[in-house]
Amino acid sequence: MDFLTKLNQRIDDSNSLLCVGLDSSLDRLPESFLTEEFPQFTFNKWLIDQTAEAAAAIKINTAFYESRGAAGWRELEMTQEYLKQNFPEVVTIADAKRGDIGDTNQAYSQAFFDHLAFDAITLHAYTGNEALQPFLNRPDKGCIFLIKTSNPGSGEVQDITLESGQLPQWQWLAQQIAKQWNTNQNCMVVVGATYPEQLKTVRAEIGAMPILVPGVGAQGGELDQVLAAGLTEQRRGLLISVSRAIMLAADPRAAARSYRDQINALR
Amino acid sequence: MDFLTKLNQRIDDSNSLLCVGLDSSLDRLPESFLTEEFPQFTFNKWLIDQTAEAAAAIKINTAFYESRGAAGWRELEMTQEYLKQNFPEVVTIADAKRGDIGDTNQAYSQAFFDHLAFDAITLHAYTGNEALQPFLNRPDKGCIFLIKTSNPGSGEVQDITLESGQLPQWQWLAQQIAKQWNTNQNCMVVVGATYPEQLKTVRAEIGAMPILVPGVGAQGGELDQVLAAGLTEQRRGLLISVSRAIMLAADPRAAARSYRDQINALR
Repeated sequence: MDFLTKLNQRIDDSNSLLCVGLDSSLDRLPESFLTEEFPQFTFNKWLIDQTAEAAAAIKINTAFYESRGAAGWRELEMTQEYLKQNFPEVVTIADAKRGDIGDTNQAYSQAFFDHLAFDAITLHAYTGNEALQPFLNRPDKGCIFLIKTSNPGSGEVQDITLESGQLPQWQWLAQQIAKQWNTNQNCMVVVGATYPEQLKTVRAEIGAMPILVPGVGAQGGELDQVLAAGLTEQRRGLLISVSRAIMLAADPRAAARSYRDQINALR
Repeated sequence: MDFLTKLNQRIDDSNSLLCVGLDSSLDRLPESFLTEEFPQFTFNKWLIDQTAEAAAAIKINTAFYESRGAAGWRELEMTQEYLKQNFPEVVTIADAKRGDIGDTNQAYSQAFFDHLAFDAITLHAYTGNEALQPFLNRPDKGCIFLIKTSNPGSGEVQDITLESGQLPQWQWLAQQIAKQWNTNQNCMVVVGATYPEQLKTVRAEIGAMPILVPGVGAQGGELDQVLAAGLTEQRRGLLISVSRAIMLAADPRAAARSYRDQINALR
């Protein structure tokens, strides 16, 4: 199935634009999980079982597994196997932010699209369309490019103004990806919830392409601004990522449902 | 010890500017290694034992390990442990091309600088100085930023001209890193051997900052042009990375020595 078809079908079936982030570093886990043989996997399984029904997508940030080396990478694998076996309809995103030259990207594509069977991956655009073909040439997989990241200092490189058209780099990249890179209809972009004005501009540049929006909750992004700026005419086109505010909630099931419902109330 | 001190000491002690790349994907290994329990590690150990004396640095590209999942990541760990135990004077580089927001970079820094004890890592600059502090604030570790990558399509994003100064992005980034980011004297930049003119410009922009140069050999970069464009006044300032041309040589020891000597003849 095409990536975009799977994503839109899941958004409709779950009636949700929520993406639950599994940033399950050991220092964030409740103490009771730390004595488990596989603490990150056991926590993730517990969290997935409570939140998957309310989630269009589940996003796994590789950094919080790699920080433990091969042991963490194994729990990432176990988590993804569990997801694929029990919730195959949920869109899985490797928040890996990779990006290299072509033959190296081929190996990363193998790692995340084939070995781990993620539906999508987050990517750096810097090496260009030519180098990124091993990701882009897979209509069954999503390529989610960093455009405007949620951090306070993202403007330093992302906002530099280009000579041609006097655009900031993030806007030019959004245009380039929409016009040149998206021949397989499998591209998405990342715009932080902390930059709603830029989100509005990106939406105008990229048509109905879906946008992954991190930065709601802990980082201060506001849901109403995100929805107003980023929805498509079909009231879709957004995956709103929430990690810590669900992971660390006293009742993650209720927290995920509440985010889904708050988002739908604004759709 | 400061990263820069370690790097320059190793360059002088080994009388070498060579960086040996361990791009040891299974499909590149001699058949005899494939029946080993740990094929990538066993191959790497064999290669390291032959080439470390001629190398200032050894670079491990994470993609070719991640493509096998946790099993590959374990062999990456074993390789790095072997290097640290037997060749602690050699500078080890995680060619990981990471780059995220601050708290995620903290986890990546833990993964590569602490857990795996690499001396340096390759990084994407896109999230900016603020987000990259978990790497930049470590004087004992090197931060190697992608500026002008070796692939044929690198110009699409890297050569975009900026309004201010009419510079291409790669040149502006080199300036920014040299002037603003390098407060701990631990920054380096990547410029592909396939772009010797740009290498010359970068050298003029960044003073004596070391440059990692991939793209010699298989990708077509020429040693004489690289040395002419990139050396500092101290006849250092370059790490010239060679991967497949040494890895796949009939006699890797001879190939590494030959590259070291060819480079020194041009220094």
